[in-house]
Amino acid sequence: MPAKVPYKRIATEEAFATKEQFEQFGKLLDGGYRDPGFESLWGFYLRSMAERPVLIRERLLDLGARRIADMDATGIDVQLLSLTSPGVNAFEPDVARAVSVSANDELAEAIARHPTRLAGLAAFAPQDPAHGAREIERGVTKLGLKGAIFNGHTRGEWLDDPKFWAVFEACEALDVPIYLHPTGPHRDLIQPFLERGLDGAVFGFGVDTGLHALRLIVSGLFDRFPKLKLVVGHLGEALPFWIFRLNFMHRAGVAAKRYDSIKPLQRWIPEVMRENLYVTTSGMPFEPPIRLCQEVLGMEHVLYAMDYPYQYVADEVTMQDNMAIGPEHKKMFFQTNAERLFKL
Amino acid sequence: MPAKVPYKRIATEEAFATKEQFEQFGKLLDGGYRDPGFESLWGFYLRSMAERPVLIRERLLDLGARRIADMDATGIDVQLLSLTSPGVNAFEPDVARAVSVSANDELAEAIARHPTRLAGLAAFAPQDPAHGAREIERGVTKLGLKGAIFNGHTRGEWLDDPKFWAVFEACEALDVPIYLHPTGPHRDLIQPFLERGLDGAVFGFGVDTGLHALRLIVSGLFDRFPKLKLVVGHLGEALPFWIFRLNFMHRAGVAAKRYDSIKPLQRWIPEVMRENLYVTTSGMPFEPPIRLCQEVLGMEHVLYAMDYPYQYVADEVTMQDNMAIGPEHKKMFFQTNAERLFKL
Repeated sequence: MPAKVPYKRIATEEAFATKEQFEQFGKLLDGGYRDPGFESLWGFYLRSMAERPVLIRERLLDLGARRIADMDATGIDVQLLSLTSPGVNAFEPDVARAVSVSANDELAEAIARHPTRLAGLAAFAPQDPAHGAREIERGVTKLGLKGAIFNGHTRGEWLDDPKFWAVFEACEALDVPIYLHPTGPHRDLIQPFLERGLDGAVFGFGVDTGLHALRLIVSGLFDRFPKLKLVVGHLGEALPFWIFRLNFMHRAGVAAKRYDSIKPLQRWIPEVMRENLYVTTSGMPFEPPIRLCQEVLGMEHVLYAMDYPYQYVADEVTMQDNMAIGPEHKKMFFQTNAERLFKL
Repeated sequence: MPAKVPYKRIATEEAFATKEQFEQFGKLLDGGYRDPGFESLWGFYLRSMAERPVLIRERLLDLGARRIADMDATGIDVQLLSLTSPGVNAFEPDVARAVSVSANDELAEAIARHPTRLAGLAAFAPQDPAHGAREIERGVTKLGLKGAIFNGHTRGEWLDDPKFWAVFEACEALDVPIYLHPTGPHRDLIQPFLERGLDGAVFGFGVDTGLHALRLIVSGLFDRFPKLKLVVGHLGEALPFWIFRLNFMHRAGVAAKRYDSIKPLQRWIPEVMRENLYVTTSGMPFEPPIRLCQEVLGMEHVLYAMDYPYQYVADEVTMQDNMAIGPEHKKMFFQTNAERLFKL
């Protein structure tokens, strides 16, 4: 059990599922939806009887006593919840619309039962950007949700296509962040990961999600929406580690006109990362990369997350309590950065 | 011009090309060799008349006065040279064998002309592992080369297939390191990078090479060859940043028997990385990730590299001279780690 501490611990990338979502996952698996990332991820987590997936299924579906008890047992004051990956991204548009709406309603009800312990982000259907934008607005203004979440590609489409801009426009207008969560890697890059069992959280998630975030940045999204706040878990999927090289080589490529698809940005990659990007420590409870992100992005831009129930380990909370940063920075990391970013 | 310093600056990932190699690159491009990573990389660097690729072509082909002058101008005492990526990896086997042998001869002659300024790694043809192993042996024992280098996939094959073990066996037996250098990403993962101009050094190289190194590790290569030393540039292609999560999720996957293709290792990923992996700073002259690697892997495992001529920037030398580490560690970083690892 982690020690009592002079700050709230707010965990910012915490997952839940609904029965309806699981039923629809099952239909995709049974109905021959061909997406190797989805099949690898939910073929395992929905069907395996090994200890880890069984526990994860049980915990995902609980939005009540068991979850609160687990939070108590690990010293978590508040969970910021989001519909587990890939949310509704893999569904046909009509299913995606319906499941996003009912999941947001269910989430809002759970928060109403535990208003001091739970908060949440809105699911939305990228398959229908106009509906998605309206659902984010409903989630924030009517249900009290604190932002939106998407999970990598939407049935093979990357969200850097301008046709998805309505979603980002809504988030910027509402002044709420949008969280980019991993999913099973896109079919166009998963194969070499799959061959060695590396497509999941071990590595493929990070590559796919880091690429997705970088595609958003170089597409000029943040020129179009300069106040948009993008949250990326797993310490930014290593983009902060790469920041120097991303900038050097991106600018070299732009200067040499190597590609039609990359253009000068109004603000280059490091500025965008330091101003528009926030990262959380989900799955990365290790001081050297956390400190790197704090140094590279600024103390305000790094937030605590546990990644419950995928990574439910009390010692990891203690490890982060014990980081060699001052008490004010620790309070920012665990509490006030999240309160400010998500307006908790 | 960087300041005089009380240590030698040994740069460990420095590239050259031979005319024969460039001619063969041209034949691949003209002859319809279909590899999108190769076509993107050398279609640009061999053919573009923009300033950057023109300068890079000139500098790659010079193993004499111009290179030495460039080293003098940036305070580099020694370059450890290797045949520029993808070396001979993209060629048909007969061409690969011939070009590797002649490139090693040419490299040895240049070193003989500048024995205090140049050293080198042996090219070899993975297409023919037995020949490759013999060529590494010839390079080390007859030509005085200091190890071997390969460049990602070989015409689509990843080097974690046991059929390539003869090459690693030779390196371990000779007690010389093998360097894993990037190439254009494998055709099975390049497409989403290419769509946004991200396949090259900006990001795709790092993903492809990090994945290649990780595939080698989880394949059990280092159980089979426990003394093998693997060198990876660009600060280990971010694997040190990911070390906690790689280990956690790899072990979770092994425990849950999620894949037939991943098995328990005699030493888990962090042990292998701390014992068998060495990283260089090529293209990553930025203190936060350098310090992270030193902390995670140990001071002995992080070596200076410039990445000449792809990244020929005097200020980057100065930046690394000025890192906030003690003088003994700085000497290790620039000089003695390289002397020990490569037996210079």
